[in-house]
Amino acid sequence: MNNVTFKTPLAIAVAAASLALSGAASANMTMEERFAELEARIIAAEQRAESAERRAELAEQGQGTSTASTPSSSVPATAISDADIEERLARVERQTSGEEGFSFNVYARSGLLIGEDGKSAPGGPFLTPAGGGGGAVGRLGNESDTYSEAILNYRMQFDNGAKARYTTMLAAGTNSSNDWVGDDTNLNVRQVYAEFSDLPSFTGAFENASIWAGKRFDRDNFDIHWLDSDVVFLAGTGGGIYDVQLADNWKSNFSIYGRSFSDYPVVDRENPGLDGDGSDTDSLILTSNNYFGNWQVMVNGMSAADNDERDIGVGQTAADTGWHTVVAYHGDSFFGLGEGNFKAALLHGQGLGAELKGVGSNGDLTDEATSTRLAVYGTTYIAPKWRIAPSILAETSRDRFADGDSYDWATLNVRLANEINQNFEMQYEASYQWMDLDPQGYSDRNKVDGDYMKFTIAPTFKPDVGGFWKRPEIRLFTTYSDWDESLNSYGASSLGNDGFTGGQWTFGVQTEVWF
Amino acid sequence: MNNVTFKTPLAIAVAAASLALSGAASANMTMEERFAELEARIIAAEQRAESAERRAELAEQGQGTSTASTPSSSVPATAISDADIEERLARVERQTSGEEGFSFNVYARSGLLIGEDGKSAPGGPFLTPAGGGGGAVGRLGNESDTYSEAILNYRMQFDNGAKARYTTMLAAGTNSSNDWVGDDTNLNVRQVYAEFSDLPSFTGAFENASIWAGKRFDRDNFDIHWLDSDVVFLAGTGGGIYDVQLADNWKSNFSIYGRSFSDYPVVDRENPGLDGDGSDTDSLILTSNNYFGNWQVMVNGMSAADNDERDIGVGQTAADTGWHTVVAYHGDSFFGLGEGNFKAALLHGQGLGAELKGVGSNGDLTDEATSTRLAVYGTTYIAPKWRIAPSILAETSRDRFADGDSYDWATLNVRLANEINQNFEMQYEASYQWMDLDPQGYSDRNKVDGDYMKFTIAPTFKPDVGGFWKRPEIRLFTTYSDWDESLNSYGASSLGNDGFTGGQWTFGVQTEVWF
Amino acid sequence: MNNVTFKTPLAIAVAAASLALSGAASANMTMEERFAELEARIIAAEQRAESAERRAELAEQGQGTSTASTPSSSVPATAISDADIEERLARVERQTSGEEGFSFNVYARSGLLIGEDGKSAPGGPFLTPAGGGGGAVGRLGNESDTYSEAILNYRMQFDNGAKARYTTMLAAGTNSSNDWVGDDTNLNVRQVYAEFSDLPSFTGAFENASIWAGKRFDRDNFDIHWLDSDVVFLAGTGGGIYDVQLADNWKSNFSIYGRSFSDYPVVDRENPGLDGDGSDTDSLILTSNNYFGNWQVMVNGMSAADNDERDIGVGQTAADTGWHTVVAYHGDSFFGLGEGNFKAALLHGQGLGAELKGVGSNGDLTDEATSTRLAVYGTTYIAPKWRIAPSILAETSRDRFADGDSYDWATLNVRLANEINQNFEMQYEASYQWMDLDPQGYSDRNKVDGDYMKFTIAPTFKPDVGGFWKRPEIRLFTTYSDWDESLNSYGASSLGNDGFTGGQWTFGVQTEVWF
Repeated sequence: MNNVTFKTPLAIAVAAASLALSGAASANMTMEERFAELEARIIAAEQRAESAERRAELAEQGQGTSTASTPSSSVPATAISDADIEERLARVERQTSGEEGFSFNVYARSGLLIGEDGKSAPGGPFLTPAGGGGGAVGRLGNESDTYSEAILNYRMQFDNGAKARYTTMLAAGTNSSNDWVGDDTNLNVRQVYAEFSDLPSFTGAFENASIWAGKRFDRDNFDIHWLDSDVVFLAGTGGGIYDVQLADNWKSNFSIYGRSFSDYPVVDRENPGLDGDGSDTDSLILTSNNYFGNWQVMVNGMSAADNDERDIGVGQTAADTGWHTVVAYHGDSFFGLGEGNFKAALLHGQGLGAELKGVGSNGDLTDEATSTRLAVYGTTYIAPKWRIAPSILAETSRDRFADGDSYDWATLNVRLANEINQNFEMQYEASYQWMDLDPQGYSDRNKVDGDYMKFTIAPTFKPDVGGFWKRPEIRLFTTYSDWDESLNSYGASSLGNDGFTGGQWTFGVQTEVWF
Repeated sequence: MNNVTFKTPLAIAVAAASLALSGAASANMTMEERFAELEARIIAAEQRAESAERRAELAEQGQGTSTASTPSSSVPATAISDADIEERLARVERQTSGEEGFSFNVYARSGLLIGEDGKSAPGGPFLTPAGGGGGAVGRLGNESDTYSEAILNYRMQFDNGAKARYTTMLAAGTNSSNDWVGDDTNLNVRQVYAEFSDLPSFTGAFENASIWAGKRFDRDNFDIHWLDSDVVFLAGTGGGIYDVQLADNWKSNFSIYGRSFSDYPVVDRENPGLDGDGSDTDSLILTSNNYFGNWQVMVNGMSAADNDERDIGVGQTAADTGWHTVVAYHGDSFFGLGEGNFKAALLHGQGLGAELKGVGSNGDLTDEATSTRLAVYGTTYIAPKWRIAPSILAETSRDRFADGDSYDWATLNVRLANEINQNFEMQYEASYQWMDLDPQGYSDRNKVDGDYMKFTIAPTFKPDVGGFWKRPEIRLFTTYSDWDESLNSYGASSLGNDGFTGGQWTFGVQTEVWF
Repeated sequence: MNNVTFKTPLAIAVAAASLALSGAASANMTMEERFAELEARIIAAEQRAESAERRAELAEQGQGTSTASTPSSSVPATAISDADIEERLARVERQTSGEEGFSFNVYARSGLLIGEDGKSAPGGPFLTPAGGGGGAVGRLGNESDTYSEAILNYRMQFDNGAKARYTTMLAAGTNSSNDWVGDDTNLNVRQVYAEFSDLPSFTGAFENASIWAGKRFDRDNFDIHWLDSDVVFLAGTGGGIYDVQLADNWKSNFSIYGRSFSDYPVVDRENPGLDGDGSDTDSLILTSNNYFGNWQVMVNGMSAADNDERDIGVGQTAADTGWHTVVAYHGDSFFGLGEGNFKAALLHGQGLGAELKGVGSNGDLTDEATSTRLAVYGTTYIAPKWRIAPSILAETSRDRFADGDSYDWATLNVRLANEINQNFEMQYEASYQWMDLDPQGYSDRNKVDGDYMKFTIAPTFKPDVGGFWKRPEIRLFTTYSDWDESLNSYGASSLGNDGFTGGQWTFGVQTEVWF
């Protein structure tokens, strides 16, 4: 009857022993190590103690039932145990799901892009002359690199209800296919920050606010995935607050971001012939993002002290301030035409703000620089097994790096997918870009105008087909790209290099992963 | 009677609340972050909902039993709860075991190798003149570096039964004993790939096949651990398929791997005196591995367009193609003599295939280069507490880097271990290498022939002694090594450097870890 | 009645199938991969099997109760199941708590430090002339970098009771605020080691001992957190043993650490005008730490063969040996005055031992060098919501890098915190440093003496306020610092650079995290 016969004293002894053991902590590690070990040991000791107590409880109830006359006396015992197990299970579930403790996220792509000559072909969505200014073309069948991000998170929940998350991201990119790139490594730490939320002392407009500091990609950046281009990419080191509720339908964020402008040449105004080298400054960006229903209004002001001393060419003065604004609509349908989603954004900036994507990241802009950019994309199903995702990215910019220069370009891209079975779909991408770039001699670049087009067929394997956002994928692809010969003379793009002069076939295999 | 009587409203309300909460997602993160957070929140929400339902269930059953007249009515309730707990426990077990979600693997070694002069001694299994061509000697008591791999995996299981695994490996190696090697870092990303298996739409010969793409070490590489030498080390960037069942007893793999040949000097045939610098090409390797029972037959063809323009010395033409083949036997016994295992492999290659281990990784080979290599090893117990592991690695190569050159070498190695108690064993290693190398002046190397021998005693601590493959280990060691003086003149090995001229005693401490 | 009706055969079949499946392992991966996969698959298979058996058990018991005449017969069944669940839950709890398997620890700080000119200001606790010799000042509001450590641990528990832990630490530091520092990366591996404990064959004085080997920070290093300065920072590559019980009240550690002295210039005694470049040696440190109750006595001897050939200036001979000793008291109260803690340490070293913090890390010391250092700190509450932490660090050093030089300095620092509510506290730090440095021309440095002071106010957010050791924190801060003008002429510190000449206001935001 009494299957489980060990006694309470045993259980207590085990619990006490494990607590005593955990008290014999070693003396003098670093502060961080000591705390970490202490926490781990306390958790372990508590668990051992709880476990021992529970076993004792069970054992006693076993005795209890043997003496109790009514079987129903065993029912409450079972119920208690279940609630207890529920609590413990819920805790380990929180930990294995990443809701508490460590979790791991990834973005990665890796593969081969081979030209007709059997060698790696130039690639990447920014390979055209417009690419230097942010004019991306479609990425499918156009990427030759191995780029991976490993994101390590650690989430904490406090007894007062507060939550904290620490995030760090390691990232590396290379065009080498070799497994060991050792000395050429650029594996670096792109993000290191902490974010607090659910703070009990934050009330009123701040009730749902979260605060952060460190080095990070801004939470509210968003991209056109098929062009591998963020619409806004605000990143750097600083601090801020998200989700301040300014009114019923108005949520606002405020942050300051710093970026480093390093080792740029300066103008020696006394001795124009003796321009110096290697000054540094900080680009400080004050940003506010505001949400009104589906609408987003972002306003950025930026300042880089003494950046006007930067030598960007005779006659031009570099900007030391700037502003930048975005009006965006985040749609819940495919442009109101059917299920799906769309986003549309209009960006405008001046001075340091004329770099519209990488906010505050370019110190070579003139103080007269202006840019305006349009970004639109959407996704929907056009038939039961056919998905479509069109997108547009277009910009016009004046006095960017030189007085009187002009950079105008527009990209149209369509990604199409035909779901064949659970694990296979055919993907197609057509990309067209028009550009008219007049650098006015900046950095020895030549005036060009013309068109670039690319068409890709990519048989694609997936563990579970369906939707544009599911990864991982493994793709084979064949791409044909062509462009106006005149674009080959720009002097600062992959076009025109080494026989890569137009009418190109490329072939490849690639994986893309995120989770 | 009505066992499951809980009031739905409570459970639904809690579940709904937590789902609603998860709906209040923030607006515009990067795509990857949004998906990751969404998934985590959905999982958390589901768990909260489930948990709430279960608590409701338990609470009501508590009420139910109090009114129920027969105690047996409580039994089904417990049974349901148990099945439920079973399912949830099994899920967290899958996650903590790494079967699903994140898991962490490591290979690492770190320690000191000090010579009689109290300074770091040259070391590593490739320290002899034959080492440059792959002629490893025993590694025990012969390693001076800190080399570590951190392998981060993430496994996904899909509702349709498909599985996916993402693997990335960070690795770094240094001979510095300092904790901070900052600017000399070579920490880099050696692997980034995805592999899919159990795809429901893969049937017939492909039923058990898995596909992969990215940067990786080939799955079927294998090594002679005691020489720190792979028998075949195929690695690079590409894609392929494993485990295609071509016949009952024939399983086959097919892959394409790319490797980068970078910045090599080229021959200017027009102006022989004006040889250029820095051409690049890709080494593309088509590989097929075939398994017939214990037999493995691997065939590799490789091509590197225009590599024949590489300048490898007057009169020689670099290979731009090659082939490579391996026949191996994977034994389930110690050469049929007793319990244990053994492997034997014969490798042959020509042109670019004449680099027999690092398949397709060497672009300096001539178009006439040929190599043949034998690799054999086995492990067994020769007495209850005595383990032995003998191995042979031998190669003959002609016209490798220069017309008429020859590289012949053979290594014999024996690792012996005497298990003393649960945590301690004595390890011994004797290594002998014969070499006869005639570089024909290649890279200013001199013709040498002679012998190298090494004997090591290593008192070794282990958490749980037993078997050759158990790690971690912590070892102390003393090594005596000696060699023919003539080997000191080769000019491209550690032998002969800085007083390291023969009859050397070295001492050290080291850990080796894998899991 | 019989709610759970599935049968044993089904369960056995499922278990068998999953074991069979796990047997179909692929052929020839690397050794490490094979073992890792094997373990994961075995664990998974065992779990599936166990799970299937349990389901079968439950099902049969369900049948059992329907035929059993007494309802109490179901009670033991439930109890068994509970013990079983207890065991499995305890296992996953060990794994999610990091007691077994993977765990993740972090130290990180990241933020902005901006001067009155709107640019990054010099910072760091070692910014004064005394800083080069270890004279730290307070860190609050004085740090401009992003420094992060990611510590990946893996703990193993063996059936014989033995435990092993593998630890690796990746770390990187930069003054750049940019998210991508790619080519300037210094992300490197600072620790790679294994440590074994609870070894069953270790008895007597060794019963509680643990052994380690690899590259690491010594376990018993300890710091003054507010100065960002270890009192002792012993780190390098080697091996040792902790916690040998030499007597009832005497616990002892013994280790050997190696550090690399690389590429230093050597004196050519034959041709004094032709000093050579780039010799290397190892600094070998024998260390013993001894604990007697609250007292710690550390003794270090060090040797670097041929380091006396190092060229450190005409007339000086570099040390090739040294010794170093520490006597410390680890107090359980605030200097006996109240609750809290304090530590006091007196350090003395000669020759290579005259670098008192980074034991054995400086090869430029003369053979006559002597140093003595005092380090004291404590923490306590002085009122219910007010915490205080005073500290002193002071050193006197002679003949350090040149005959007749002298380096004397002392730092006083006080950190004060006023806890306002659950998530907010005001932190204050006042720091004062006196220095009198006479380098005797070493490295073109000038004799200086004078004072430095710094005062910082830092409004600080925390998820859960209370205690000096709780992190993460997000801080805003304003700092005023001033110093004697004479310090600007030292020539090897941030003071005096680029307008940073005294009376400085700096502003910033920062996060600090550890767990």
